[in-house]
Amino acid sequence: MKVNGTSMRSIWPIGDSAVGVVDQSLLPHRFETRELESAAAVEHAIRTMVVRGAPLIGVTGAYGLALALRSDASDTALAAAHAQLLAARPTAVNLRWALDRLRALIAALPAAQRAAAAWDEAGRIAEEDVQLNRSIGAHGAALMRTLHSRVRRPINVLTHCNTGWLAAVDHGTALAAIYAAHDEGIPLHVWVDETRPRNQGLLTAWELAAHGVPHTLIVDNAGGHLMQHGQVDMVIVGADRVSAQGDVANKIGTYLKALAAHDNKVPFYAAVPSPTIDWTITDGLTIAIEERAASEVLMVNGLDASGLPAVVRLMAGATAVANPAFDVTPARLVTGIVTERGVAEPARLIELFPEHRRAA
Amino acid sequence: MKVNGTSMRSIWPIGDSAVGVVDQSLLPHRFETRELESAAAVEHAIRTMVVRGAPLIGVTGAYGLALALRSDASDTALAAAHAQLLAARPTAVNLRWALDRLRALIAALPAAQRAAAAWDEAGRIAEEDVQLNRSIGAHGAALMRTLHSRVRRPINVLTHCNTGWLAAVDHGTALAAIYAAHDEGIPLHVWVDETRPRNQGLLTAWELAAHGVPHTLIVDNAGGHLMQHGQVDMVIVGADRVSAQGDVANKIGTYLKALAAHDNKVPFYAAVPSPTIDWTITDGLTIAIEERAASEVLMVNGLDASGLPAVVRLMAGATAVANPAFDVTPARLVTGIVTERGVAEPARLIELFPEHRRAA
Repeated sequence: MKVNGTSMRSIWPIGDSAVGVVDQSLLPHRFETRELESAAAVEHAIRTMVVRGAPLIGVTGAYGLALALRSDASDTALAAAHAQLLAARPTAVNLRWALDRLRALIAALPAAQRAAAAWDEAGRIAEEDVQLNRSIGAHGAALMRTLHSRVRRPINVLTHCNTGWLAAVDHGTALAAIYAAHDEGIPLHVWVDETRPRNQGLLTAWELAAHGVPHTLIVDNAGGHLMQHGQVDMVIVGADRVSAQGDVANKIGTYLKALAAHDNKVPFYAAVPSPTIDWTITDGLTIAIEERAASEVLMVNGLDASGLPAVVRLMAGATAVANPAFDVTPARLVTGIVTERGVAEPARLIELFPEHRRAA
Repeated sequence: MKVNGTSMRSIWPIGDSAVGVVDQSLLPHRFETRELESAAAVEHAIRTMVVRGAPLIGVTGAYGLALALRSDASDTALAAAHAQLLAARPTAVNLRWALDRLRALIAALPAAQRAAAAWDEAGRIAEEDVQLNRSIGAHGAALMRTLHSRVRRPINVLTHCNTGWLAAVDHGTALAAIYAAHDEGIPLHVWVDETRPRNQGLLTAWELAAHGVPHTLIVDNAGGHLMQHGQVDMVIVGADRVSAQGDVANKIGTYLKALAAHDNKVPFYAAVPSPTIDWTITDGLTIAIEERAASEVLMVNGLDASGLPAVVRLMAGATAVANPAFDVTPARLVTGIVTERGVAEPARLIELFPEHRRAA
C-alpha cells in the first residue's frame, strides 16, 4: 500500500543480508523504517513490537532465522535461533508456524545451502501472505462495487481495530477490501472505530490517510447511532479466529457493532484468510477469551503539548479493571465471511473449503 | 452520599451567605471543595465546570441569584444577575428553569424580602431534586432486591456515563438505585463503562469507591462480551431525554449496550426524574443529536508520571473526527423506565403520569 504516494510493504528484503521494516512502535505519531541485519535484531524488533500483527511477525521471524544461518548454518545454531526467535512472542501462532516451516525445509539440506534456501523460503511466506490478502481484497471490493452500484453515492464503511497492511505484509484483510475498492475508483468513506483500549483504530486512520482513503475517526460508542441514521452502508472487520459455523472471534467490541448492524439491516462482513478458520471449533462462544493487563485500559498513549510521545494514567489509585481482549460475534449476525476463495454466508463457509468436510 | 465515611451533597449552604461545592474539575484525581460567596464566583464555577450535571447547575445558579440579591435587590440587579448566570451555560435547560423560577417568585416581592426568599427557594429546589432522586433510588433498588432474591448471589449491574450524586444534588438517578440497594444490604457489583469520549465513567468509579460500592472499570467495548457470558444481571442508565413512547436519549453508546442486553435477555432500565420525560415527542429518533468538538475525542485527560494532571493528544495532524454526543435507544429495547412514581414498561409510562394524557 502507499505512504504518501510511495508503494510500501511492512517488510522487505534488502539485498540478501538484511530486512527493512516500518517501526510500528512509533506509529501513528512518526513514520520511520528500520534495517534489521541479524537474528538478534529481528528478535528485538518482535519483542518490542517494532513489528506487530500475526502474519508480519511470522514473516519477520522467518527472515530472522535465515539471517542466523548466514553466520552459522549448523544444526546447533538452527535450533538455538529457532528457540531465540520463538521466545520473542511465545503465544504468536504464526511465528511458530513460520519458524517450524523453515526448520523443516532447512534441516534436510546441507549446511552450505541452508542460508540461501531459508532466505528464499521467508520470501515465499511473505509472498503467499500478500497473495492471500490480495484475493481477500478483490472479493471484498466486489461487495463494495455491488453496494455502490445500488446506492449510487459514496459508500460508508465502518471498521474496527487495525486490519491493514501494517499487520500483514501488504493489503491486510478488511482493509485490503477497502484499499482494493478505493484503488479501482469506487467512492467510499471509512468510519474508523478508535478501538479501546489499545486504540488500534489510530493505526487504521494513519494507514488510510497515508494511502489517501477518506475516513473519519469515531469513538467505539458512536457506530450504533451512525447506523440508526443511515450513515453506514457496510461493516467489515477482520478476525482472530472464525469457527466452523462462522462465529467470529475478533477484537473486543466487534459484537456490539454486529448487533447494531443487524438491528439496522446493515451488512456485516468478516474478512479472513483461511488459516484463521478453526475447523475444529463449532460454537465460537466456547473460545477462551484472553484477559489482558489493566494497564492497557488505565494508561493512554499520545503526544504532549510539544508533540513528543507521552502517557497519561486515567485514574490514580487501585481501581479494579477488567480487560477482555476479544469477543465473539455469533454467525447469525454475520452477513458473510470474505476469504481468499470468495464470500460465503457463515452456514455455507464449508462449501468454499470442501477439503475440511468431515466424514459423516 | 458518602465520601470515605462522611455524608456529602454536591452543594450545601454555608450560613446564608455562601454555598459549598465539590470541585468536579479536579475529579477523579483530587477531591476538594470550594466556597462560592458571590454571584460572580457562582458564574465562574458553572462556566469552568467546577460544577456540572443538569440538576446541580440549576441549583447552583439559583443560589448564585440569591447571593446577587444580597448586595443589590433592585429589579435592575435582578435582571443583570439572571442574564449573567444564564450566560455561564446558555444551553443548560435546568439552569434557565431554576433562574426563571426564582425570578418569578422574587419579582413580586419588595426589595427588602428578596434575598432571603431567593435563598430559601434555592434550598427548596435542591430539596426537591433530592426527594425526586431518593424516590427513583427506592424504586430502582426494589428491582435489584427482586433480582437478588431470584439469583441468590451478588448481582452484577452495568452502567454507562455518570448518573450519580455529583451530577445531581444527592443520590443521582441510575446510581441512586445502586446506592439505595447497596445501603440496604443487597450484595452487588457494578461494571462501570469508561464512557468515551469524555470518560465520565471515571467519575462513577470515583463515586462508587468513595461510597464503598464494589465496582470494576471496563472499556465501552467490553459490555457485550460480559453479557454473553452471564456476567451482567441488569443494565441501568440515566437519560438526557425520554420520549412519550419511552425511547431513551442518553450518552453515546447506550444504544449498543441496550442491544446487547436485549440479545442476552438482560433487563435494561433507564432511571429518570419525570421532568426528563418530553411528552411532546413520540419518536425519540427524531431528537436532534448534538455534535461536539473533535478535541473531546482527540485530547485525553489523566495524570502524568508525577501524578499531576496532564493531557495527551491521541493523534497529530488534521484527522477528521465525528463526535455525536448522544444516541437514542428505542423503547422496544427498554425493559422499564424508573421514575419517582415507580417503574413502568415504556408503553405504560403514561399510566404513571396520567396528567400528560392528551385528549383523543
